[in-house]
Amino acid sequence: MLEEYENRTDLALEANEQIKDEGKQSGIVVHENYDELSGLKITCIDITDSNGEKALGRKMGRYVTAENMELATADSGQQDYMADRLACIMAELIKSSMNPSANPHDRIKILVVGLGNKEVTPDSLGPLVTEYVSVLDYGDDEPAEDAHIRMTAIAPGVMAQTGMETAVIVRGVVASSRPDVVIAIDALAARSSARLNTTVQLSDRINPGSGVGNHRMGLTRESVGVPVIAVGIPTVIEAATIVHDAIVNFTKAFAGSDIMGTMKDVMDSMTERERRALMLELIAPSMSTMYVTPRDVDAAVQRTAYIVAKALDRLPDIMTSA
Amino acid sequence: MLEEYENRTDLALEANEQIKDEGKQSGIVVHENYDELSGLKITCIDITDSNGEKALGRKMGRYVTAENMELATADSGQQDYMADRLACIMAELIKSSMNPSANPHDRIKILVVGLGNKEVTPDSLGPLVTEYVSVLDYGDDEPAEDAHIRMTAIAPGVMAQTGMETAVIVRGVVASSRPDVVIAIDALAARSSARLNTTVQLSDRINPGSGVGNHRMGLTRESVGVPVIAVGIPTVIEAATIVHDAIVNFTKAFAGSDIMGTMKDVMDSMTERERRALMLELIAPSMSTMYVTPRDVDAAVQRTAYIVAKALDRLPDIMTSA
Amino acid sequence: MLEEYENRTDLALEANEQIKDEGKQSGIVVHENYDELSGLKITCIDITDSNGEKALGRKMGRYVTAENMELATADSGQQDYMADRLACIMAELIKSSMNPSANPHDRIKILVVGLGNKEVTPDSLGPLVTEYVSVLDYGDDEPAEDAHIRMTAIAPGVMAQTGMETAVIVRGVVASSRPDVVIAIDALAARSSARLNTTVQLSDRINPGSGVGNHRMGLTRESVGVPVIAVGIPTVIEAATIVHDAIVNFTKAFAGSDIMGTMKDVMDSMTERERRALMLELIAPSMSTMYVTPRDVDAAVQRTAYIVAKALDRLPDIMTSA
Amino acid sequence: MLEEYENRTDLALEANEQIKDEGKQSGIVVHENYDELSGLKITCIDITDSNGEKALGRKMGRYVTAENMELATADSGQQDYMADRLACIMAELIKSSMNPSANPHDRIKILVVGLGNKEVTPDSLGPLVTEYVSVLDYGDDEPAEDAHIRMTAIAPGVMAQTGMETAVIVRGVVASSRPDVVIAIDALAARSSARLNTTVQLSDRINPGSGVGNHRMGLTRESVGVPVIAVGIPTVIEAATIVHDAIVNFTKAFAGSDIMGTMKDVMDSMTERERRALMLELIAPSMSTMYVTPRDVDAAVQRTAYIVAKALDRLPDIMTSA
Repeated sequence: MLEEYENRTDLALEANEQIKDEGKQSGIVVHENYDELSGLKITCIDITDSNGEKALGRKMGRYVTAENMELATADSGQQDYMADRLACIMAELIKSSMNPSANPHDRIKILVVGLGNKEVTPDSLGPLVTEYVSVLDYGDDEPAEDAHIRMTAIAPGVMAQTGMETAVIVRGVVASSRPDVVIAIDALAARSSARLNTTVQLSDRINPGSGVGNHRMGLTRESVGVPVIAVGIPTVIEAATIVHDAIVNFTKAFAGSDIMGTMKDVMDSMTERERRALMLELIAPSMSTMYVTPRDVDAAVQRTAYIVAKALDRLPDIMTSA
Repeated sequence: MLEEYENRTDLALEANEQIKDEGKQSGIVVHENYDELSGLKITCIDITDSNGEKALGRKMGRYVTAENMELATADSGQQDYMADRLACIMAELIKSSMNPSANPHDRIKILVVGLGNKEVTPDSLGPLVTEYVSVLDYGDDEPAEDAHIRMTAIAPGVMAQTGMETAVIVRGVVASSRPDVVIAIDALAARSSARLNTTVQLSDRINPGSGVGNHRMGLTRESVGVPVIAVGIPTVIEAATIVHDAIVNFTKAFAGSDIMGTMKDVMDSMTERERRALMLELIAPSMSTMYVTPRDVDAAVQRTAYIVAKALDRLPDIMTSA
Repeated sequence: MLEEYENRTDLALEANEQIKDEGKQSGIVVHENYDELSGLKITCIDITDSNGEKALGRKMGRYVTAENMELATADSGQQDYMADRLACIMAELIKSSMNPSANPHDRIKILVVGLGNKEVTPDSLGPLVTEYVSVLDYGDDEPAEDAHIRMTAIAPGVMAQTGMETAVIVRGVVASSRPDVVIAIDALAARSSARLNTTVQLSDRINPGSGVGNHRMGLTRESVGVPVIAVGIPTVIEAATIVHDAIVNFTKAFAGSDIMGTMKDVMDSMTERERRALMLELIAPSMSTMYVTPRDVDAAVQRTAYIVAKALDRLPDIMTSA
Repeated sequence: MLEEYENRTDLALEANEQIKDEGKQSGIVVHENYDELSGLKITCIDITDSNGEKALGRKMGRYVTAENMELATADSGQQDYMADRLACIMAELIKSSMNPSANPHDRIKILVVGLGNKEVTPDSLGPLVTEYVSVLDYGDDEPAEDAHIRMTAIAPGVMAQTGMETAVIVRGVVASSRPDVVIAIDALAARSSARLNTTVQLSDRINPGSGVGNHRMGLTRESVGVPVIAVGIPTVIEAATIVHDAIVNFTKAFAGSDIMGTMKDVMDSMTERERRALMLELIAPSMSTMYVTPRDVDAAVQRTAYIVAKALDRLPDIMTSA
């Protein structure tokens, strides 16, 4: 029963790990490779049908994860390699998301959207990236007419600051500035503390309800009108997840003893209502509005925001040369 | 000739002072009064036709100035009075801007737009106001269905940060969030240092090119689709204005002597090109991208932003009770 | 055994709650009262000897807690009452900390120290208070010679920013600016989520290792040279505490069943090393560097910092009139 | 007479330019060279006696200026060269400032002091540098015992924030943390707009009253107890300087005419008091608390702070290898 309790993760990679033991699933295709230059382990998960959707609890699409972004110890050369690798993955996702009949020589307009609340450190990734990205800083000069890529950026804030759903703002700015694609940067929730600030997920899908903040409406091609590429880095774990995992580990620790049997007997003797009450007692309601985050999250978010901004700065070159 | 050199001010009040000596102008109607409670001197300037437009160098409309906002010395009671007075002026401008056929009992949606660059202290007024305003912070609760006013807010950033014209972003957000009126908050340029951070201009017109920043396109009813109320506080003087004024004062100081005659002779002997070159030498080209601002502008802007935010917080009550 | 695992709280009030069931302790004197005007429940805990020190795990001294600071819903009048009440408690702690032979008419110099990291939202309380406090903002004017209280303020940053122990910086500034007393503001860790951002602890003792950050050396009269009054508000819960509490609740839930007996048998059959390993597995090492905090911590910290700053602003009046 | 009016510049280079026409001065030794790799023009001015002190209006010492820091257009390779060159100049100033009898193999402790007000954009250089410098960010690890250089950093704030003279805070932190040398980073005032954000002055002297802010007491070896190396970048021009220069240029423009004679006659006919009144009218009193700064000062200060921080990060390697 405990295992059924929702374990929120915004990483498709972690969702896949949870169901791995159950053997190969239809509708899920996984490819792994290791990129020597950047030191990144790349996992590409394709959800290809509704079976896959159900098994992983997220929408059809491609979810690429780049792990091992040990930025704290990486030198500036290796950071460049990482940024280049991330830019390549972005470029591929953009190309496959756009209308295949589009003329490849047309100029592409990209709108970078930095989701999240700048005032809350672990939720500040998106706004920081829009601050750090420099490719759009034309000053008074218009970009050369023959530039293949044109980039703009916005940090729309969160509902507590604006009184508006973020998706409403983004939809409006898309309608008036007419980009060909949106790249949405967001801080995510993971299950494993080892993945905080070290893993990037790039995908052609944003699932509603993801992110550190409360993005009630998802940012999707349907809701904003153009393809949306999502770039997310986990910075928090839900407090409820921590509690759940502790209890699962606790019961596992007594797996060989009679406890599990006794516990099952007790559970069986409870009504459904009693069982729910027990769960609610363990995972207090206040937990649902709380998250767990590392002490040094400020430095970590600044470093990862810097790499993502660098990747965006490299994107025009990489898309043009490809 | 010197007097002809453009003396930029965003305050209609100052523009009117410059032409006062020339006697009463057609197309300009001025009313003054003093509000005892708040200690504010209120001047209402109506530009009623194209004569007035030409004389004051700005578009037809109402420009209300509230002077003497000595916030540094005001106690919290007096600040409340000031906020209330500003809210009343806003309410009047909103009512006269909106469609007269609108049902007075309909809910009014207001979008507060904080113009300017938060990273540049004297240009941070607008973004600070959107931070301080609290009336829209519903948390998880929706406002009561019968609330007469609903307020949302956004700080769209400046072109150097977004790569987009601010008006494009605002137009988009207006289109998707459908407010009935926009209240745009902006830091302005004045001519007199005594007016910096002590004067508020409220008007039903934003003129293109106003503000500390470079808002190339104006925010107008035409460009965004709904009425726009402008609330501005001067925080800078153009560097060119300072230089111009010094030279005018300098020549005035010698008014009784032969200097003016001699100067006129010299000027007359110059070609037009030489005269222009002289002006350019005096007001160096680099001046045009520079501004003058007080040393304590940080504290001053925070104080005025707080009063404007308070006025916005009071607006729903005042509009409902009116 | 689980109960023995350290449950960190920086609130003496919570430490006292944990030992309450064990009956009255020598060396601990508790007084409670309710302040109608402010709506605050005030609990004063005096630790009077080493028995009390051992029982509560903190040094001899007075720990006053003001609960129920429901700032989100308080109007500005009630906030004024709260600030006044807090200022009174500060005034009493200051007076009892200072040399009784001091001339009561001498001017008192207070140094406000805002501990913590401004870049990490739940640790930003101290730096925010030093920003908000206005009583020291003399501008160019020296305070009147006959002012009874003179206040200065500093936010020393954290070791990751300065490379220095915070206590080293404070000791230096105390030595050169010679205040009579230090008021140290800090964000704390609590055990109960209900106390986050709603409770203030004021005491004449700072215990080493307290606070959200890692203040390795305590700020004490011994380490800085003058009395230190501590004002703390809990903004986080240690991640290990959350896990611990969940497991305790879990085992309690099965208290009536045979599980506890079985569990005890299993535990007894384990070696000490095995038991430790189990604990470490449940409370992962990474947990020790993580904390739990509410989603809306930014707004909550801003509100409480504002009240504490207001209390400091009121302190001179209150100390002079008393 | 106008020329006598104080023209404030914090750059010894500009002070020297103003007296150049008067021929070679005793007590001033100037060396220039051009560094190809970094593209910097380096001017070293030594003030060697009281004649030089009087002529340049500043204390004996070495003032090195690195011009042409066109950071907006420099690529990251050239920025590295600039940072290295600045680090070399710092290393030389440190070595010549320290006790020559010191054992060259002893560990050197450096305290970086970021002067200025972070909330006022053109005064934020110092605090930004202490934020960006990373060499002191040891996290939990102490630096290796055999590290030759150990760096710490502090941003003491300004008097309006702390109520204390900055020098009092620095003296205290020096006393308690015992560095061998202080490197003080500060934003300066220049005379020429072309030098704003493009010139660095490194010197072994800080003159009282320099800097954008109001540092009433200088930071000197005498006031803080250890040698002080000053690193300054001009970000503002005094408003009075702009006005003065305009009037000088204006009178120069009429140099060939009779105006100068007439003006001299008028001036001569004035009493001393009348002349002072004229000057005060031209350079309004409010001007003395105002400064002129470029519109894009935020981006410019961030870029130069980044280079200075990089130079500090390189300093340990450069001092060790030298």
